[in-house]
Amino acid sequence: MSIVIRHRRQPQELPDVDDFEIVDVSVPVPTGNNIKVQSIYLSLDPGLRSKIRDIPDDAIKHQTISAYALGRVMDPGMTNLSVGQLVRGKWGWAQEALVPSPDLEIVDEQSDIDPADELGVLGMPGMVAYVGLLDFGQPQPGETLYVSAAAGAIGSMVGQIGKILGCRVIGSAGTNEKVTRLIALGFDDAFNYRVTDPEDALKKLAPNGVDVFFDNVGGPQLQAALDSMALYGRIVCCGSISTYNGPPSGLPLYGLRQMVTNRLRMQGFVIWDHYDRSADQRSDMLQWIRSGALEPLRAVTAGIENTPAAFIAMLQGSNMGKTLIKV
Amino acid sequence: MSIVIRHRRQPQELPDVDDFEIVDVSVPVPTGNNIKVQSIYLSLDPGLRSKIRDIPDDAIKHQTISAYALGRVMDPGMTNLSVGQLVRGKWGWAQEALVPSPDLEIVDEQSDIDPADELGVLGMPGMVAYVGLLDFGQPQPGETLYVSAAAGAIGSMVGQIGKILGCRVIGSAGTNEKVTRLIALGFDDAFNYRVTDPEDALKKLAPNGVDVFFDNVGGPQLQAALDSMALYGRIVCCGSISTYNGPPSGLPLYGLRQMVTNRLRMQGFVIWDHYDRSADQRSDMLQWIRSGALEPLRAVTAGIENTPAAFIAMLQGSNMGKTLIKV
Repeated sequence: MSIVIRHRRQPQELPDVDDFEIVDVSVPVPTGNNIKVQSIYLSLDPGLRSKIRDIPDDAIKHQTISAYALGRVMDPGMTNLSVGQLVRGKWGWAQEALVPSPDLEIVDEQSDIDPADELGVLGMPGMVAYVGLLDFGQPQPGETLYVSAAAGAIGSMVGQIGKILGCRVIGSAGTNEKVTRLIALGFDDAFNYRVTDPEDALKKLAPNGVDVFFDNVGGPQLQAALDSMALYGRIVCCGSISTYNGPPSGLPLYGLRQMVTNRLRMQGFVIWDHYDRSADQRSDMLQWIRSGALEPLRAVTAGIENTPAAFIAMLQGSNMGKTLIKV
Repeated sequence: MSIVIRHRRQPQELPDVDDFEIVDVSVPVPTGNNIKVQSIYLSLDPGLRSKIRDIPDDAIKHQTISAYALGRVMDPGMTNLSVGQLVRGKWGWAQEALVPSPDLEIVDEQSDIDPADELGVLGMPGMVAYVGLLDFGQPQPGETLYVSAAAGAIGSMVGQIGKILGCRVIGSAGTNEKVTRLIALGFDDAFNYRVTDPEDALKKLAPNGVDVFFDNVGGPQLQAALDSMALYGRIVCCGSISTYNGPPSGLPLYGLRQMVTNRLRMQGFVIWDHYDRSADQRSDMLQWIRSGALEPLRAVTAGIENTPAAFIAMLQGSNMGKTLIKV
């Protein structure tokens, strides 16, 4: 038997462990172009919360949670994969799964790289940080980069890539422990947004303004950044985790007038549009990890049965870096 | 003697005629590199209202209103200009003025073009429409363009250029008379935002979403557009006239989350940065006027003493097209 985590019902605001169900299933021998995989790591992403919010309860009930996972081929079926090959796919929060061959990506396993990073720095969150910062933020050496949710999977990479590119990097996070960790990671400055008002912090830490704001949270931090942007500043809208559990309309923003007076550019993006950049991402990220310039932060919890609790804790901001379940 | 219009005091919210003073002055014979000019047309721009809002009352009192004007050289002084030459500059709301030579632009007078257009289609508002739409909006043939304040100096040009580029064009304006005029100008659809809620109107008129929103007004119309943008939509932030007379923070916006999910780009700009495009603007605009593809809308009031009242009326939305005083 094999464990899968499914939706029991649509969560109300912050999800509860009872919104999930842990079920034992039997995964059959693969037929057709299916491959049987065994998970090593499951990915926990904040975006899941917003993705399900508009799905009717009936449509979500008893569905396996959709998420990236990393695993090994248990049974290649009629395909030409080999048993034990490292593969990545969106088979979700499941110990074992049958996955159609086109939905599986063969991972070029690196002996000196933790396979967990294939779901982090080398996976989708790494892609978001890479494309969002390089292609949309377009930071120049000497510019000031501000990252919200800077201790998260994406934020911690954005800040470190900013340092590699020669920026002055400021991060915000929700605990003093995270702030300390960001400074240790090489951030020039960091502040706890629960203690210091972001607008006051940015006035002090970026007196000449923020050139690039990489926004993972939306809401009041986006407001503060709008009030602190330098001329020709760029705001990369990556996510708005601050609004995922709230009402659909989100929090109000004031002062979009600065868009005009400060010649700002605000750009939202969704990573699915940018997979043409994945070879560049992999090559640069591997080089940066190996040179020690980029340290992958991971928050790994053991045991698939702990996945719902770890997901909820992540939404509450308890984690640093990429949140993963080691199955 | 010659009339100038000056600030009497900083306006509170909507300006009042008593915020201005009409003064008789004597403009001396030019010395040094100064040129004496006589105004033909004065430009009335909504942007003036926002420009002065943060200037202290003491600093503004008795200052001549700064604005574009078109005129002829009365006395070239020691420069090599000729009497009667057509010139443009920012000498403000004045019947006559002494202008330093570097601040004067010699206008290449066109026998078949109304000189008033040198302050409109061929002047700064034309430049804003041209650069904002072409360089930032980047509309493609067949795309849907939505323009707010569409009967204004800038909006009426943006919509017409959109038609020239092959877009479907929707405009909003504040009176039924303006709406009728927009349709006559070639807009595909137009609505009165005081009668029809912009969000409802856009849902009906742009069921597949707005590809390019050229925003002159901010506030609720920006909100409505955010809720109506198509995937990869572009919002050009040109101005926010709806907020110029209100509190500095402006009106709140909700739902910036769409920036991410719909991959939107929002771009503010200030025209001073883009004068490298002025030769292109002049050449394209002249061609479009001469072919009849672009009709310059003008709202001309005679008499310099009527300038304050005409300016206030413009801020209240009474005009169509470029507001000018014929001196």
